[in-house]
Amino acid sequence: MKDIEYVKPEEIEKRSFEIITKELSEKGIVLPKDRELIIKRAIHTSADFDYAKTLTFSENAVDVALELIKNGADIVTDTNMGLSGVNKKVLAAFGGEAHCFMADEDVTREAKERGVTRATVSMERALSIDKPVIFAIGNAPTALISLYDSVKKGGRKPDFVIGVPVGFVNVEAAKELFIDTDIPYIINRGRKGGSNIAAAICNALLYMARDGKSTI
Amino acid sequence: MKDIEYVKPEEIEKRSFEIITKELSEKGIVLPKDRELIIKRAIHTSADFDYAKTLTFSENAVDVALELIKNGADIVTDTNMGLSGVNKKVLAAFGGEAHCFMADEDVTREAKERGVTRATVSMERALSIDKPVIFAIGNAPTALISLYDSVKKGGRKPDFVIGVPVGFVNVEAAKELFIDTDIPYIINRGRKGGSNIAAAICNALLYMARDGKSTI
Repeated sequence: MKDIEYVKPEEIEKRSFEIITKELSEKGIVLPKDRELIIKRAIHTSADFDYAKTLTFSENAVDVALELIKNGADIVTDTNMGLSGVNKKVLAAFGGEAHCFMADEDVTREAKERGVTRATVSMERALSIDKPVIFAIGNAPTALISLYDSVKKGGRKPDFVIGVPVGFVNVEAAKELFIDTDIPYIINRGRKGGSNIAAAICNALLYMARDGKSTI
Repeated sequence: MKDIEYVKPEEIEKRSFEIITKELSEKGIVLPKDRELIIKRAIHTSADFDYAKTLTFSENAVDVALELIKNGADIVTDTNMGLSGVNKKVLAAFGGEAHCFMADEDVTREAKERGVTRATVSMERALSIDKPVIFAIGNAPTALISLYDSVKKGGRKPDFVIGVPVGFVNVEAAKELFIDTDIPYIINRGRKGGSNIAAAICNALLYMARDGKSTI
């Protein structure tokens, strides 16, 4: 059994990232500089090094996301857990707001009437927001599918998609849909992901926008 | 690339659990009946089958937790993400309330003054709740260490500990502390866990209490 090591509260996160950095290096994994903080935050929130291999970025994804944040883009999540994990203070400092429409009563009612998921209706609401929006999808593959369908039908394109739903039904396929589009994305290929991963990626981007650096 | 399969919204969860059940069986893993729903919900929320091996239960843990819930126990989490993931409607139907003290301003102030983590102060608040409390710790190993220290000093024992913090500093050691105590627990050994896992375990227990069955 490992012993408890005394680490000052303010040092815990720093020490965690040192361990992640060391173990990535032991595994021979070199992260691109601009993606480093994002990938390390995903590992930090899950203790799962798979994210170093499966997180996939469209060309210049990080620059595009940072530009959106700095220009006051909103963030829409597909769970209240994701919403509660996003650092709304930092987002607000740039003029952005975070939303989740999933638990709204009229969303539930409309989804039932139309026989679609609440995620589909939530995404429609999000696409009608009158400013740039970053979609942070950590749970519902149907949210990703709805966004994709909406674009195919000539609807508004999402400004940025963080596509990290977790699960077993249509999750992998829904993520792959986005890989060949021209919509900027950070996608986690495979089954893994989650609201915690979606929030961690949002926060990594927010801290990069605030601090002007992508390393830790 | 896998194709998108049309699954009715209300069937998605059922189909997910069928896939989990099939793959567990292919891996030769047989889950104890009383723990089945808990372990499957942890896998469902993470797409990580490691939880079938690492989730560890004290003797009669499930019975103890269900009894607590049915008698109106509260749940205290160590993150607002965990709090937002717990099904508070089902909990309220049994007379329980969910709390998280981590973001309270006076908790932050007191932690700073004393040079301890906010988790430590939050746990002290939780231990002063005048009814049975289930501790659902998905983030801060210092929350577990504080609870342990408080018991060692003769303080109130937590009624139940869901100990699934995630991370790299003291996380494994903090979980191991509880294995040899007589405090009832569900612990995830190793580094993995998270607020999503803590909420998934709470919800599995709540649904078992409501539905009277542990299978899916």
